Amino acid sequence: MRLQFTKGHGTGNDFVLFTDADMDVDLTEQRVRALADRHVGVGGDGVIRAALTERHEEGRGQDAEWFMDYRNGDGSIAEMCGNGVRVFAHYLLANGLAQADADGMLPIATRAGLRPVRVLDQGRYEVSMGEFTIAENDTLVTAEGIDVARPALSVDVGNPHRVVALATATELQALDLTRTPGLDPAPDHGANVEFVVPGAVTSGRGSITMRVHERGVGETQSCGTGAVAAAMATRHWIGDDAPDTWLVAVPGGEVEVTASGTEATLSGPAELVFSADIDVE
Amino acid sequence: MRLQFTKGHGTGNDFVLFTDADMDVDLTEQRVRALADRHVGVGGDGVIRAALTERHEEGRGQDAEWFMDYRNGDGSIAEMCGNGVRVFAHYLLANGLAQADADGMLPIATRAGLRPVRVLDQGRYEVSMGEFTIAENDTLVTAEGIDVARPALSVDVGNPHRVVALATATELQALDLTRTPGLDPAPDHGANVEFVVPGAVTSGRGSITMRVHERGVGETQSCGTGAVAAAMATRHWIGDDAPDTWLVAVPGGEVEVTASGTEATLSGPAELVFSADIDVE
Repeated sequence: MRLQFTKGHGTGNDFVLFTDADMDVDLTEQRVRALADRHVGVGGDGVIRAALTERHEEGRGQDAEWFMDYRNGDGSIAEMCGNGVRVFAHYLLANGLAQADADGMLPIATRAGLRPVRVLDQGRYEVSMGEFTIAENDTLVTAEGIDVARPALSVDVGNPHRVVALATATELQALDLTRTPGLDPAPDHGANVEFVVPGAVTSGRGSITMRVHERGVGETQSCGTGAVAAAMATRHWIGDDAPDTWLVAVPGGEVEVTASGTEATLSGPAELVFSADIDVE
Repeated sequence: MRLQFTKGHGTGNDFVLFTDADMDVDLTEQRVRALADRHVGVGGDGVIRAALTERHEEGRGQDAEWFMDYRNGDGSIAEMCGNGVRVFAHYLLANGLAQADADGMLPIATRAGLRPVRVLDQGRYEVSMGEFTIAENDTLVTAEGIDVARPALSVDVGNPHRVVALATATELQALDLTRTPGLDPAPDHGANVEFVVPGAVTSGRGSITMRVHERGVGETQSCGTGAVAAAMATRHWIGDDAPDTWLVAVPGGEVEVTASGTEATLSGPAELVFSADIDVE
């Protein structure tokens, strides 16, 4: 099978995108892995098919023209991807497949339900990440490069996170995340772990620097739900005076997280790098 | 700058190739790193420019039309790459930039001097890897996943290697090469380390399975000089009755190494995956 694809990324979280409006492509796990393979395929953290919502069985009924059929690079199915949905919106607009409405909104259907994307200027996009919940518990995190176990805050953003505060950028850099951090108690299905160094609050906006270890993946350049978890944990630690908007520096760039009640939005860049044809068995 | 490129690989050792016959492109380290970046660029272990030999200052005088201007993914310059030269020859032929002679030979100019490439059938290529030398010494290798330090044979294939024999495929799989193996004594500039499980000798041809940790890189899918080192070390251990030709299973596929006196040839597949345009700053 010959497939026309586009490689794109949002703060280094990268994807192989292709259009299959009518769901003609049999997107097997093997094909997803072949496309996502960084050495013999295109390479990406995930593969995203653009399908018409009405033609995708998991999209029907959602009030959006396009469904984001997102797969992890290992071929498994994921419900949502905060960086991926920005890149997906950018891909639809750049290829003339969709247009934002007069308010700059472009609704995207996903397995996690409808996600309204707001088109900002300078190639940036904002997406609602839904509800987040914070739980005080007694998780201790160990990692190579930090000397003693550190307490973590548990944040759920549709998926589980453990957020650990570090004191300095030096300590953050010294972390060796080629090893999976240890969690005690260990969640049944693991958790993403964010290490955060709080920065200055300027003009009512907070800032943090973070690194993230994604469960089953390893350290990544960026993680949308991780950025939300890290920002909302830091806001929680500061307490009532904390700002609602947070600039989050990840290894692959910068995103912004804004809390609105118990919900959060994520904004950041989206880029398309190249387009080509590839033979997929 | 807009650049037309092709992504190719040989047993998973992957490259970004482009043609710049007259050396018009200012190929800075930064541009090499941008192209080789697996998340925001094309992605590859190396970047290869096809330049006319007479137009490249390091090629002049070599009796070949094309010079392989090979760069490591980090932007540094490399003299040769055993898998890269096969992919480079395939790229030249596939794009009609060169033709093999009546004997199926295509000479390639490299920083390590002229490398004659033989075009085999089924998309395979054979390249002379030059001299190899074996030194008995007392290097001990430690690695995560093996219980005690193991003795290694030192093999030089233009670059330094330490080859360790393991008893079983289970032991090979259990190795954790996300950590750099320890070498005692440690060579001044490090060394590539190959872990080898000898297999059967059939029809006069030996076989081994190997994994390799490349210095400064980590574990790779394949390493041309590493395959030569591992095969020649195993041949050395067997002694006078050892075959000259070795099938080497690497994580990314299979290559074949043949000894001829103190020189070795490497043969294996070469594949082009896709071609596209990319903007490079």
